[in-house]
Amino acid sequence: MPRGSMDILSRLSLLTFLSFLTTAWSGKVLVFPVDGSHWVNMNLMIQGLHSRGHEVTVVRTATSWYVKETAPHYSSLTITIPEAICIEKEDFFVSFLVKMLAIKKEGGSPMAFLSFYWEMLGTLSIIHQQASMVGVQMLEDKALMQKLRDTKYDLVLIDPGLPVGVLVAHALGLPTVFNVRWITSGEGHFVVAPSPTSYVPTSGVALPDKMTFLQRLQNTFHYGLNTCIDKFVVCPVYDRLVEKYFGSGLSFYHMLQAADIWLMRVDFVFEFPRPTMPNIVYIGGFQCKPPSPLSAELEDFVQSSGDHGFILMSLGTLVKGLPKEITSKIAAAFAQLPQKIIWRHAGERPDNLGNNTLLLKWLPQSDLLGHPKIKAFVSHGGTNGIYESIYNGVPVVGVPLLFDQPENVLRLEIRGAAKVLDVTQITTESFRDTVQEVVNNPFYRDNMKRLSSLHRDQPMHPLDTALFWIEFVMRNKGAAHLRTESYKMPCRAFAVL
Amino acid sequence: MPRGSMDILSRLSLLTFLSFLTTAWSGKVLVFPVDGSHWVNMNLMIQGLHSRGHEVTVVRTATSWYVKETAPHYSSLTITIPEAICIEKEDFFVSFLVKMLAIKKEGGSPMAFLSFYWEMLGTLSIIHQQASMVGVQMLEDKALMQKLRDTKYDLVLIDPGLPVGVLVAHALGLPTVFNVRWITSGEGHFVVAPSPTSYVPTSGVALPDKMTFLQRLQNTFHYGLNTCIDKFVVCPVYDRLVEKYFGSGLSFYHMLQAADIWLMRVDFVFEFPRPTMPNIVYIGGFQCKPPSPLSAELEDFVQSSGDHGFILMSLGTLVKGLPKEITSKIAAAFAQLPQKIIWRHAGERPDNLGNNTLLLKWLPQSDLLGHPKIKAFVSHGGTNGIYESIYNGVPVVGVPLLFDQPENVLRLEIRGAAKVLDVTQITTESFRDTVQEVVNNPFYRDNMKRLSSLHRDQPMHPLDTALFWIEFVMRNKGAAHLRTESYKMPCRAFAVL
Repeated sequence: MPRGSMDILSRLSLLTFLSFLTTAWSGKVLVFPVDGSHWVNMNLMIQGLHSRGHEVTVVRTATSWYVKETAPHYSSLTITIPEAICIEKEDFFVSFLVKMLAIKKEGGSPMAFLSFYWEMLGTLSIIHQQASMVGVQMLEDKALMQKLRDTKYDLVLIDPGLPVGVLVAHALGLPTVFNVRWITSGEGHFVVAPSPTSYVPTSGVALPDKMTFLQRLQNTFHYGLNTCIDKFVVCPVYDRLVEKYFGSGLSFYHMLQAADIWLMRVDFVFEFPRPTMPNIVYIGGFQCKPPSPLSAELEDFVQSSGDHGFILMSLGTLVKGLPKEITSKIAAAFAQLPQKIIWRHAGERPDNLGNNTLLLKWLPQSDLLGHPKIKAFVSHGGTNGIYESIYNGVPVVGVPLLFDQPENVLRLEIRGAAKVLDVTQITTESFRDTVQEVVNNPFYRDNMKRLSSLHRDQPMHPLDTALFWIEFVMRNKGAAHLRTESYKMPCRAFAVL
Repeated sequence: MPRGSMDILSRLSLLTFLSFLTTAWSGKVLVFPVDGSHWVNMNLMIQGLHSRGHEVTVVRTATSWYVKETAPHYSSLTITIPEAICIEKEDFFVSFLVKMLAIKKEGGSPMAFLSFYWEMLGTLSIIHQQASMVGVQMLEDKALMQKLRDTKYDLVLIDPGLPVGVLVAHALGLPTVFNVRWITSGEGHFVVAPSPTSYVPTSGVALPDKMTFLQRLQNTFHYGLNTCIDKFVVCPVYDRLVEKYFGSGLSFYHMLQAADIWLMRVDFVFEFPRPTMPNIVYIGGFQCKPPSPLSAELEDFVQSSGDHGFILMSLGTLVKGLPKEITSKIAAAFAQLPQKIIWRHAGERPDNLGNNTLLLKWLPQSDLLGHPKIKAFVSHGGTNGIYESIYNGVPVVGVPLLFDQPENVLRLEIRGAAKVLDVTQITTESFRDTVQEVVNNPFYRDNMKRLSSLHRDQPMHPLDTALFWIEFVMRNKGAAHLRTESYKMPCRAFAVL
C-alpha cells in the first residue's frame, strides 16, 4: 500500500465525521444554566446546538444577571421566584472578597477564618435554597409541566453547579447531560468517579498531585469535610423536594450521579490526571477559537508597543472589590515596565496609572490572548481565561482571589507556565519583578507553548466533541451503557471500594 | 445561522481530521506482540501503522506460532530462546481443555479443580519465564541493544499479556503504548485503574456488575487472589530481571503501570462500565470492517439456505480438544435445523453430519458475520468473534470453553444478546432448542442490533483512534500529562484510597 494512502477504515472514519459535520436534524433541548461566568460557556454550547439545527429552551429566573430573555439562538422560559435573595448580582460575590481581604489584612486568626468559612457555608445553603425554588415553581405548575411534556424534549442539558434541573428532568423522564466542572459542593469528578486522596487533591485546597504524607492527611481531611458539606448542607435542600414530589426511597445524590453524560470542562494539560468514568467526556477549552481581528483603536495601541509587546490584565468581575491601595501598587508596577498594558478594570481608577496602561471596562480577551504581540496574561485564574491562555500559549501571572482560583493557578505554576502572587502581600516591586520574570524568562512561555501544543493535539475540537455526545444521547435516548453501577450503591464508600 | 451549516469550529475539526487522514510522516515503532489470536489484532494495528508510513519492527521468537519472519508491512527481529518450552503450539492449550472437560465429567470435586488451578498457576509461571527469556537474550546482547539504540525508535508498542517489551523499552528509554486487554494475570484495568469490587467483577469469575452481597464477597476474594498471583507468581519473574539489569529500587509492576497510553481492546457495549484513566483509550472492535464478498462456492452455499438463512459456528482453535461425543451431539442438533450451517472445525469429523452442514478448517468469519443471510453465531466467546458479531448485529449462542470465555459470553447474555450453554452438559435437544430460540426469538437479534448501533455510533473508527494516539505519543515523546501519580504509590492499596 502506498505510504499515507487512506485505507478503508480511515475512509469510513471520514464519512462518519463528515456526516456528523453536515447532517442537520432537529432535536429539542431544555437547558438549566448557572448564571455568571458559567453562562458564557453554556451560551456557546447553545449556539453550537442551534447552529446544528436543534431547538433550545433556556430556563432562567426573572432576576437573571447574564441570561437574556430573548436571543436569536434560543427561546427562554422565565421563572419568577418569590422573595428572591439577591445572589444574582456581582456585588454579592464582591462582598466576599472584601471580607476575606480584611481578615487577611488583620493577620488572619484561625477564628476569623473559621467564622468566614461558617458564613460561606450559610451562603452556600441559601444559594441552593434559592436555586431549588426554580424547581418548586416549575413542579408546582401542573400546566407548565404538561406543556413541557407535550413539547417532547429529547434531553435536559444542565450545569449542575446549581443542579435543580435534575429534578425537572426526573419529573419529565428525560435523559440528562451535564455541562460541568463544579457540582453542588466541589469538583464534578468527586461525585461520579473514584477519587483516591493519595494523589487526587480535593476541591478547596491548593495541593499538588505529588503529595507528602502530611499533605495526604490534609487532603483526606478536606475530602471528608467536602463530603459532609455535600451530605448535610447541600443535598438536604434537594432531598426535601425529592421526597415531596417523587416520594421517599429516592436520593437526590443518586439522581445527580445518574446523569447520562458528563461533559467535563477539563483538559489534562491543566487538571492533574485522575481516575475517570466511561461517561465523562472531556471538553476543556471548548470555548477557545482562533482570534478575530481587534478594533482599529486597540490594534493601534497594541502595535505601538513595538518589540516589547503588551501585557493583558484581567481579574474577572470581582476586581471591583480590590481596595485602591492594591490597585495603586499594581498601577505603579505597570508604569515601570517597557511593555504596553491593557487592563480590564471596572472598579475605581487608580490615580497613578502609567502612560503605557490602557484601562477598559470590557475587552475582547480571547482575541487579545491570540494576538502575536502579547507577552503575558495577569489573571485571577478563572477557568475561561486559563483555557484561553493555554490555547494561545500565553504564560500567566496568577493573582488568585477566591473560590477555585488558587487551585487553578497552582496547576499552571506546577507545570512551569505561571508564577503566582498572593494579592494581600503584593508590593509594587514584587508585582513588577514577577511580571518581568514571566515576560523575559523563556521558561514560562516555552512551557505554556508545550501545553498549548498538547491541548491542540486532538482529533476533534472539544466543542464538536461536546455536540457529538449531546446528539448521541438524543439519538440513543440516554447512554446507560456508559454509566457504572456505582451510582446505585447504598453507601458512598461502596462506590470506591 | 442556517441550520446544519458548518461553523468555524466544525471546520477546524474537519481540517485537523483531514490532516490526520492524509498526512504521512515516518516514525519507527518496535513491536512486542503476543502469539496466537492476540497477534491477529496486533497485526492489523501494524498494517495500519505501515499504511500511514511508519516503519515497524516486530520482535518474534524463532519458534513463533503465528508471527511470520517476513511480511510486506513489517521487518522482524527473531530471538532464539535456548531450551524453549513448547508453549507456542496450539496443542499446549488444547491439552488444558481436555483436562478440564475430564474433571467436569468426573463430577468436578473441589480437590480436582484445585489441583487443576494449581497446575495452571505453574504453567502461568512457566509461560512468563519463557517470555522473559526474550528479554534476557536481548538485554545480554550488547551489540543488538546498541543497534536498536542507533535505529532511534520513536515508540515501543507492546501487548502486555506477556510484558517483556516493557524491560526493553525501559533500557532504550522509549515511550510505550500498550495494545491490551489482558495483562500479566488479569484484565488490564486492574493494573492501572481503581477497581471497586462492589460493582467491577474481577477477572476469572463470571459475575455481573449488579452483584448481591455474597457475590461481592466472592468478587473481593477473587480480586485478592488475582493480586496475590500477580505479586507472587508473575511479577517476581520480571523483577529478577529488573534488579539484574537496572539495579534495585525499581519495581516491574510500577514500570508496567507507567505505560504512556493503554489502547484497551474494550467497548462498553460489551464490557461493564467501570472506572477508567485519562491515558486509557478504548478501541474495542478496532478489527471490525464491512464484509468483503464471499467466494463463489461459499456464496452459493449461503444462498441455498433461502429464507431460513444460515448459522455460523466457530469454537476457535481449541475445538480440536472437544471430544467426539460432544461434537456428535452438536452435529445431530444441527441436522435437525432448517437453516444451513457453516462450521469451522479442525478436529475429527463427526460421523452424523447433516446435509445442511458445511465443515471448513478455515472460514472468512468476519465476512460471513456481515452476510445478510446470517441468523446466529455459535461461538466459544473469544473477543475477536464477539466484537465481529456486535459490529454486525448477529445474536450469539455461547459455548465457552476456557479462560475469559465464560466472562465474555456472560456479558452478552446479560444484555439479552446471547444464550449460553455449558459445553459439558450439552445434549442434542438442549443445543437444538437454544439455537432455535436465538434464531427465532427477535429479542436476541433486536438487542444485538441495538448494541451494534451503539457501537458504531462513534466519531472515529476505533482503529483510527488507536493510530491517532500511537502517533500522538510519537509526536509528543510520551503522554506523561495523562498518567496519574498512582503508578508511583509505594503500596498498591494507596493507588485506590
